[in-house]
Amino acid sequence: MMVFQSSAYGKVFVLDGALQLTEKDECAYQEMITHLPLCSIPKPNKVLLIGGGDGGILREISRHSSVEQIDICEIDMMLVDVYKKFFPDIAVGYEDPRVTLHVRDGILFLESNPGGNYDAIIVDAFDPIRPDHELFETSFFELVTKSLRPGGVLCIQAESIWFHSLDIEQLVKKCRQIFKGSVEYAWTIVPAYPSGVIGFLLCSTDGPPVNFKNPINPTEPNESYGVAKGPLKFYNSEVHSAAFCLPSFAKKGDESKVGSTMNGVGTTTTKDVIK
Amino acid sequence: MMVFQSSAYGKVFVLDGALQLTEKDECAYQEMITHLPLCSIPKPNKVLLIGGGDGGILREISRHSSVEQIDICEIDMMLVDVYKKFFPDIAVGYEDPRVTLHVRDGILFLESNPGGNYDAIIVDAFDPIRPDHELFETSFFELVTKSLRPGGVLCIQAESIWFHSLDIEQLVKKCRQIFKGSVEYAWTIVPAYPSGVIGFLLCSTDGPPVNFKNPINPTEPNESYGVAKGPLKFYNSEVHSAAFCLPSFAKKGDESKVGSTMNGVGTTTTKDVIK
Repeated sequence: MMVFQSSAYGKVFVLDGALQLTEKDECAYQEMITHLPLCSIPKPNKVLLIGGGDGGILREISRHSSVEQIDICEIDMMLVDVYKKFFPDIAVGYEDPRVTLHVRDGILFLESNPGGNYDAIIVDAFDPIRPDHELFETSFFELVTKSLRPGGVLCIQAESIWFHSLDIEQLVKKCRQIFKGSVEYAWTIVPAYPSGVIGFLLCSTDGPPVNFKNPINPTEPNESYGVAKGPLKFYNSEVHSAAFCLPSFAKKGDESKVGSTMNGVGTTTTKDVIK
Repeated sequence: MMVFQSSAYGKVFVLDGALQLTEKDECAYQEMITHLPLCSIPKPNKVLLIGGGDGGILREISRHSSVEQIDICEIDMMLVDVYKKFFPDIAVGYEDPRVTLHVRDGILFLESNPGGNYDAIIVDAFDPIRPDHELFETSFFELVTKSLRPGGVLCIQAESIWFHSLDIEQLVKKCRQIFKGSVEYAWTIVPAYPSGVIGFLLCSTDGPPVNFKNPINPTEPNESYGVAKGPLKFYNSEVHSAAFCLPSFAKKGDESKVGSTMNGVGTTTTKDVIK
């Protein structure tokens, strides 16, 4: 873990060599990964967070007055302590009395708590994203469906549209078979992340239908409710719906045609470079 | 000028130390700065481009079959030549027979051509963006209004929402007074640019009303028309409308509250840093 002060992005947190969060833009990530799922369902009550040990997602869940129970599974207690020390405006999420911290692996937690009947499960536990990550395996998604109420929702971080370590189209197809409700891909800008954007996969289980693209709670989250010390910085219902609009290359699942002359196919040599 | 091959973004063009364009993401910038204005008006006929010497915006204008005249004012002929040599898929825009290249200053061109009666003027001539740049002065905007037909449109590059060297709210107010039509701010992602996004100011003159947020040409631009060698990579009408949805901090014109602990106000010292 490394914490440092930057000139342009405020304090920065780095884990295993990968930038996790900066003070300047954490609002974009934390608010979107939280309110995209929670504003898509009526009156969320029980929420589970896997990962997200910094506390920022807890802070955002805290704005929802209908929520009565917030469980978080974070495997690394030192990470929690470092955030509490250096990022109090983010770790403030832990001050919500509805929060219970489980210092353990999220998959083991789900396995030992079948029938969790959660309204929403948020997964913020990758770095770096790998296509073979166990959190993208069918068995994990099936475990999630068993822990959600009918019509409950999953939101899981799922790669930038500019990269293709994940085949998002395939992932959406797979999840449609497993979840049997709605499955959509959304994205947000996060300047400090590679390529400046990050995606989310949103899935709902069989049950009351969920229309992720049109938030059912346009006036939620309640800006003055919970432990957050100020109003929303990033999320609003317009941005919610816009998050599902994809550039043409991403829609067609054809990243390869963007920058088609890349990776050494170009003809520039050192001799050609003009300075 | 510097041209180099990168591992992740293809060929890169740098001017006066500022990254101008990469092969991987140029589509986002060129398509949005072109089609946001041109798809907002019916059958654009005469288009003026100020700057944009690389040719990519010409390539995109070229997709509009209603266009009969494309003027470009580019002050730097060497830039044009370098693009033609190293970025043929971008400079291809010059191959459109409707294009006339004027190697001169855009402001002088407008001054010597009053009553240009353009349907659209696109300005891509900044780097770096400075609030005191002459292209943000009232006199320039007034010159533009004189060169547009009634209900004609301007699209000009206008800073990232994450920075505040430009006071966008003030700029929008000023332009509403000068243009007397619609004035809106839109943005797109461009991974290789600082903060990963860039904004556009869109203005229409007094005349037939223009609703920038809802493209009037949802089926244009014509993907197979003109000199571009392939279909659109980024732009579509959903992305067009989404480009006007702003994060809450940008809506309120209050960038200062994002990263409010930045710029030395934070309490981290070298001693505190954990590694």
